[in-house]
Amino acid sequence: MRVLILGGDGYLGWPTAMDFAAAGHEVMVADNYMRRNIAEATDSDALIGAPCLSERAAIFEAVGGKPIKVRISDLSDPEVMFGLVREMQPDTVVHYAEQPSAPYSMRGFREARETFQNNLDVTFNCIWAVKEHAPDAHIVKLGTMGEYGTPDIDIEEGWIEIEHKGRKDTFLYPRAAGSLYHTTKVLDTDLLWFYVRTYGLRVTDLMQGPVYGISTDEADLDPRLCPNFHYDDIFGTVVNRFLVQAVAGVPLTVYGGGGQTRGYLNLRDTLQCVRLAAEHPAGPGELRIFNQLTETFTVNDLAERVQQAGNQMGLDVEIRSIPNPRKEKEEHYYNPAHSGLTELGLKPHYMSETVLGAMLERIIENRDRIVSDRIMPRVRWS
Amino acid sequence: MRVLILGGDGYLGWPTAMDFAAAGHEVMVADNYMRRNIAEATDSDALIGAPCLSERAAIFEAVGGKPIKVRISDLSDPEVMFGLVREMQPDTVVHYAEQPSAPYSMRGFREARETFQNNLDVTFNCIWAVKEHAPDAHIVKLGTMGEYGTPDIDIEEGWIEIEHKGRKDTFLYPRAAGSLYHTTKVLDTDLLWFYVRTYGLRVTDLMQGPVYGISTDEADLDPRLCPNFHYDDIFGTVVNRFLVQAVAGVPLTVYGGGGQTRGYLNLRDTLQCVRLAAEHPAGPGELRIFNQLTETFTVNDLAERVQQAGNQMGLDVEIRSIPNPRKEKEEHYYNPAHSGLTELGLKPHYMSETVLGAMLERIIENRDRIVSDRIMPRVRWS
Repeated sequence: MRVLILGGDGYLGWPTAMDFAAAGHEVMVADNYMRRNIAEATDSDALIGAPCLSERAAIFEAVGGKPIKVRISDLSDPEVMFGLVREMQPDTVVHYAEQPSAPYSMRGFREARETFQNNLDVTFNCIWAVKEHAPDAHIVKLGTMGEYGTPDIDIEEGWIEIEHKGRKDTFLYPRAAGSLYHTTKVLDTDLLWFYVRTYGLRVTDLMQGPVYGISTDEADLDPRLCPNFHYDDIFGTVVNRFLVQAVAGVPLTVYGGGGQTRGYLNLRDTLQCVRLAAEHPAGPGELRIFNQLTETFTVNDLAERVQQAGNQMGLDVEIRSIPNPRKEKEEHYYNPAHSGLTELGLKPHYMSETVLGAMLERIIENRDRIVSDRIMPRVRWS
Repeated sequence: MRVLILGGDGYLGWPTAMDFAAAGHEVMVADNYMRRNIAEATDSDALIGAPCLSERAAIFEAVGGKPIKVRISDLSDPEVMFGLVREMQPDTVVHYAEQPSAPYSMRGFREARETFQNNLDVTFNCIWAVKEHAPDAHIVKLGTMGEYGTPDIDIEEGWIEIEHKGRKDTFLYPRAAGSLYHTTKVLDTDLLWFYVRTYGLRVTDLMQGPVYGISTDEADLDPRLCPNFHYDDIFGTVVNRFLVQAVAGVPLTVYGGGGQTRGYLNLRDTLQCVRLAAEHPAGPGELRIFNQLTETFTVNDLAERVQQAGNQMGLDVEIRSIPNPRKEKEEHYYNPAHSGLTELGLKPHYMSETVLGAMLERIIENRDRIVSDRIMPRVRWS
């Protein structure tokens, strides 16, 4: 299978590329280094520096024996996107190429506009490039569980049958996201759904929860193949951030009450989910939506698990609530369905003490690089 | 009240501007003439030529005694939008500044992208300009009934309570529009809803049905104040198009089976609705949604009404079904709620034979300008 990965330099994009290549697929990655540039501009470098994409591809070819083609290019330019799709004629386009930080998208007008335009334009160009040059290709789009927000009813997988005044119909599950970044993904889904039903495109939209982890089979081959592991307030997801705080000896910063519940998954499971979706494509005219998570936790649960894993390794871990910089419910109902990917064959890697312990070890090896003042929230929602 | 009208050169924007000015409000209009340029490029000139905005404002001041300030500027440029809002400090921003043609948005990539970028960027800039420079201003945004599509349950006014597995919550009514143009308005609503609940903006989103009409109190003062009356396949709404076909002596072209049902309203009622919304603003943090229509008809109903009105005036009017260029249901359930604007005070002008007859008379006066080959659909959905 020919797989084109948009946003192939990212925390998830790069390990996904290696995973597909290791499985024998022909892989091309494209990226414009937007995340790297934002990380530099906001003083949010990753814990472990990752070489540029062409270097990583060369290292992976040397140690893993599989080539990955690299294109450094701006996918918000339609000519670039059309050119790539025309050139490669992919069977699958995995679309990660979005500005992924919620806090960055809430920082001010410039950052909001950059997020809004990049994310929407890349999705728009991706749809049209596939429609015009590879209409049978399957788009695997990374959405987010954050699209749904925290409704007071069960979250279904993308669709909901509504019974109203004695009549019934099925709709896209209504969504209300908590940041502009998450809202761009709501808009992506609306746009994909329009073009799927109008032109018969094949799309899987993966509503992913926050990911944690640093280890994958291929990333473990060489330290330079490590995903971009962020622990800062801009790009660091909560579990990764807590683990770094545990190692740095600063309190784990719980935002507000800590009752915020989300669905989490291990980086290894992201790779499984994306590959399962690609290897079992949606049909023509189908917008298939999966909720991509394996277990749900409150922020307080996470803090306690990290504390426990830290204690096991002799770290003294304190937990401290700080004023919530976000606008979100701190106590709420949360019950998301997530059986679709399991039915396709997902075998979850749960958040065990062993998993957290292995991450802590890796962070301890790099503890000299931790800059503690990157961890506290620098952006407030209002 | 200071009223800033974005898209003030349009079929609705210009009569809205005159209506607010005549009622004693301070009015500024902004427009970049996108619709004029597209009309020229697609050979879709209006039936009656309208002078440029500054000329129309001068004529209106001479005959109506009220000034309207004019700014010819591109609102998709944030500096322009921010500058206007900062300069005027409006109480109300009426946002019509979108590429309004569904067929144009479905013509090809270039036209789709132009529609997508213009419509979303203007809405995004409008939100931010108000947030930064006039946070108490009320945004009155023109949405469309087309956002809802044709669901098999009743269409409520913007919001719906969903009962699901024994629990309940209220959501934005789920939407599935029939063209990219209509889809940009779905995205607008999602975006407005995010910023309303995050920053406490005041927004009314008017889900308007197709408008017909040519006469308003102010437009009738001088023929040069006439709204841009289009009858072509690109900008002409169905009633206006049928009336021109009746006068031209060509068959009324019903797309497909003609059972497509929509909610319609008279141009005079658009003015009433927008002014009622502005004079009774939404509260801070409120996204208020009204369905803006006064009666529903099938396309076949409309054709028969136009035929009847034409016959009364001695015109020989034929009705002919042609293959549907759009992708839409031709028989469907349709029951939209629309009580909100009535409760605010809307007094509807229904589609009577007198109303249609007066429009036919006006079209007959201009029959020499009708170009018949602008009427047949030039764009197909697939």
